[in-house]
Amino acid sequence: MEIPLGRYRRAPGSDTDLVSIDPAETGPFPPNGEGRKAARKLLKRQRDRLEALQRLLYADGSQALLAVFQAMDAGGKDGTIRRVMTGMNPQGVRVTSFKAPTEEELAHDFLWRINRALPRKGMIGVFNRSHYEDVLVVRVKGLVPEPIWRRRYDQIDAFERRLVETGTAVAKFYLHISKEEQRERLQARLDDPEKHWKFDPADLKERSRWNDYLAAYQDAMARCNSEFAPWYVVPANHKWYRNVVIAQVLIDTLEGMGLNYPDPDFDPAAVCIDG
Amino acid sequence: MEIPLGRYRRAPGSDTDLVSIDPAETGPFPPNGEGRKAARKLLKRQRDRLEALQRLLYADGSQALLAVFQAMDAGGKDGTIRRVMTGMNPQGVRVTSFKAPTEEELAHDFLWRINRALPRKGMIGVFNRSHYEDVLVVRVKGLVPEPIWRRRYDQIDAFERRLVETGTAVAKFYLHISKEEQRERLQARLDDPEKHWKFDPADLKERSRWNDYLAAYQDAMARCNSEFAPWYVVPANHKWYRNVVIAQVLIDTLEGMGLNYPDPDFDPAAVCIDG
Repeated sequence: MEIPLGRYRRAPGSDTDLVSIDPAETGPFPPNGEGRKAARKLLKRQRDRLEALQRLLYADGSQALLAVFQAMDAGGKDGTIRRVMTGMNPQGVRVTSFKAPTEEELAHDFLWRINRALPRKGMIGVFNRSHYEDVLVVRVKGLVPEPIWRRRYDQIDAFERRLVETGTAVAKFYLHISKEEQRERLQARLDDPEKHWKFDPADLKERSRWNDYLAAYQDAMARCNSEFAPWYVVPANHKWYRNVVIAQVLIDTLEGMGLNYPDPDFDPAAVCIDG
Repeated sequence: MEIPLGRYRRAPGSDTDLVSIDPAETGPFPPNGEGRKAARKLLKRQRDRLEALQRLLYADGSQALLAVFQAMDAGGKDGTIRRVMTGMNPQGVRVTSFKAPTEEELAHDFLWRINRALPRKGMIGVFNRSHYEDVLVVRVKGLVPEPIWRRRYDQIDAFERRLVETGTAVAKFYLHISKEEQRERLQARLDDPEKHWKFDPADLKERSRWNDYLAAYQDAMARCNSEFAPWYVVPANHKWYRNVVIAQVLIDTLEGMGLNYPDPDFDPAAVCIDG
């Protein structure tokens, strides 16, 4: 079953109208229990493939992969990372969650803490939120003057270009949910005592700025979307479809990196291990 | 089936004679295909339990867990981390592999780089090699004068005591394999082109110092083994038994930490989410 990744990948230089993209779409799968079952089966196979590719990336040791996850609150960043990445060797994956910057981070430019968290060669780096917050929440809440955040689009673009040119593949995901889906997920957090800790009443204030965030996302995708560090808008109302889309992007990205098991610099046949 | 963890946990202040411990033992499991099958089934259940406990640790947010893995070459550190930790959310687990120290690391004391890699609250930190290398390879190869490495035992003990007292549980594992088992595993790396990159001819030199390493491990276990940061000698010839022993130690350690889902500082019933 072919997942239409071309539809979700934003072409460089193109505009994105998020309102026109259906967050509930399920691609080639029927949007019901049967589709979910088929997608879960596919995800299992994808995880095996990802595990093998991650081992190869590690052995190859000359390149890295950075996966960036952005979404509205309750958009599914945590769940995606858990479901898609869980089959991988944690030794080869490093997840960084970016929260409100610390005093030390604020004493540097906005990409300083991002730079520190970049994956080393052989590794997969996963960002739960990222430098894009500096043109999203920072813009919507007016945390810095407009001329400053406006300059950041080019700064981010140059930063990502450097990463790609020096051996780190970059894939950026916007987990696209509807406002109604967000309502249901926030309510679910309120209804389950084991999820109370995930609910922050301040999230409701952000929810009221939904359209401002959509506009900020659209600008980020238009301005920071080079050929080699593409944005994917992932329909994410259905978690099971979201997961297989993201897994497939990661697989395709890794397969396109030209990874190889390195040749030894000794002759394996000539080595003798004493008993 | 009860795994005899008491047998593997080194009592504080006691001496350890590694030669007298059978690396091929399999506890309550028969050492055959049937035992392996039963252990793998158990590991699946343990992984589910570990995933739930890791989520609780993260939600609780007031404590951390540090798991330290040490072994001879080919002792199974990488494989253990892959097999035991793979079911956990990579967002809550951070693996650090300590290799030969960099110039910057050498410009600081030996615990500086360890300190930087400690897990933050809510996280599980996994060390693939650790500060113990500074009383193992450093001692065996004579990389620093004896008075310096001799002082390190107390320094490590004080460091770990601080960790435990300030909310980081510590569990230390020595993966115990026989010298013959090491020979077979190194040979397997030579025989498989996809594993050549894992073989380093220099490992054979270390192998020739087997008994020196055993003595150094025994001293480390005697000198740095407080009640709260215990050493476990894990029979590791059989990977499937090794995995269930380590998973069980991690489960018991997490269960003993008194973790709770935090109470919200708002009234969930009073929150209303607008449509």
